[in-house]
Amino acid sequence: MRSGERGEGKPLTLWVLTGNEGKLREFKSLGESLGVRVERAIAPKLEIQSEELTSIAALSAVLAKAASSIPTPAFVEDAGLFIRALKGFPGPYSSYVLKTLGVKGVLKLMEGVEDRAAYFKSAIALILPDGSVKVFTGIVNGSITLEARGEGGFGFDPIFMPEGFSMTFAEMSTDLKNRISHRGKAFREMVSWLRTAFKTRLP
Amino acid sequence: MRSGERGEGKPLTLWVLTGNEGKLREFKSLGESLGVRVERAIAPKLEIQSEELTSIAALSAVLAKAASSIPTPAFVEDAGLFIRALKGFPGPYSSYVLKTLGVKGVLKLMEGVEDRAAYFKSAIALILPDGSVKVFTGIVNGSITLEARGEGGFGFDPIFMPEGFSMTFAEMSTDLKNRISHRGKAFREMVSWLRTAFKTRLP
Repeated sequence: MRSGERGEGKPLTLWVLTGNEGKLREFKSLGESLGVRVERAIAPKLEIQSEELTSIAALSAVLAKAASSIPTPAFVEDAGLFIRALKGFPGPYSSYVLKTLGVKGVLKLMEGVEDRAAYFKSAIALILPDGSVKVFTGIVNGSITLEARGEGGFGFDPIFMPEGFSMTFAEMSTDLKNRISHRGKAFREMVSWLRTAFKTRLP
Repeated sequence: MRSGERGEGKPLTLWVLTGNEGKLREFKSLGESLGVRVERAIAPKLEIQSEELTSIAALSAVLAKAASSIPTPAFVEDAGLFIRALKGFPGPYSSYVLKTLGVKGVLKLMEGVEDRAAYFKSAIALILPDGSVKVFTGIVNGSITLEARGEGGFGFDPIFMPEGFSMTFAEMSTDLKNRISHRGKAFREMVSWLRTAFKTRLP
């Protein structure tokens, strides 16, 4: 965003770097609920191999900024499903595992496994106008269901039931999922930080 | 390698960037069989997420060279096991999958699966004194066994039986494995190329 483009009463615009339509939909909906516009920016994407989502997201953000002239504030999100009985698998490689093994493969790995505990984690790396990067994270605990349920969401949502609910993420409305999800938590943290920062020191 | 360090009759020294003791052992043995010294060099390692082993290895090599003053010629290897029935899984993420699901997890995914076809692929990125990078690859076809067999090798070797053999990689001597393996093929290609190149245009 160019300085001066945002006047009084004009909503903050955040640029998201993603090729994932499911994520884009959730971020747009999250933005609406907070009075923030979320738009997609196009930039080359390079993700490192790491078990730390925060490192993956932060380096993706730095590289995207270095490689192209993206508008700011912009953000990159990396998320993963971490299953305790599988030592954190599929974790940072969730999208690759979804494409190869799929939901069925993960259910097969969990056949006969009593410990169903898992969590989703989101790491958002925010690129500021001065090129610096700030990372926000969100986690939601839950369990892996015995079978896939629901048509909503994306990724491993049909087999993840968040703590305190009897529905999977895929059985929830986008709105409900966003209120409790890892992604929603990280996004709200970012917006809250940005609002304070813009009042005090950002242009 | 500093220019002039290699005289007539002195063996070529290749520096390998790896933290994997199994790989180091195989490369040293491969080197011996070809009259080449293989020594470990220390450099920061950064691997990207990609389904192309050649891209992972090449960028790792470029980044290692950029980040530190490693001796040359040096090389980085990336390898993976690609299982057809699992759409190539675990592929480029084989070491992460080994650490989380292990050999047992992959056998569980393959329970009841008739198509056992798989291949190992190795991609070696060679960094030359002038900073340029050349990539060599090797593939060995085979199948996933019904159970783990053998104590040798490393990684997924106990469940991989190369075409034309009734032993797994883990049941073979290092020497025999090297003669037929993806890694051996890529390494021999590299050495053969280097020998020709040193004769004609490398310092």
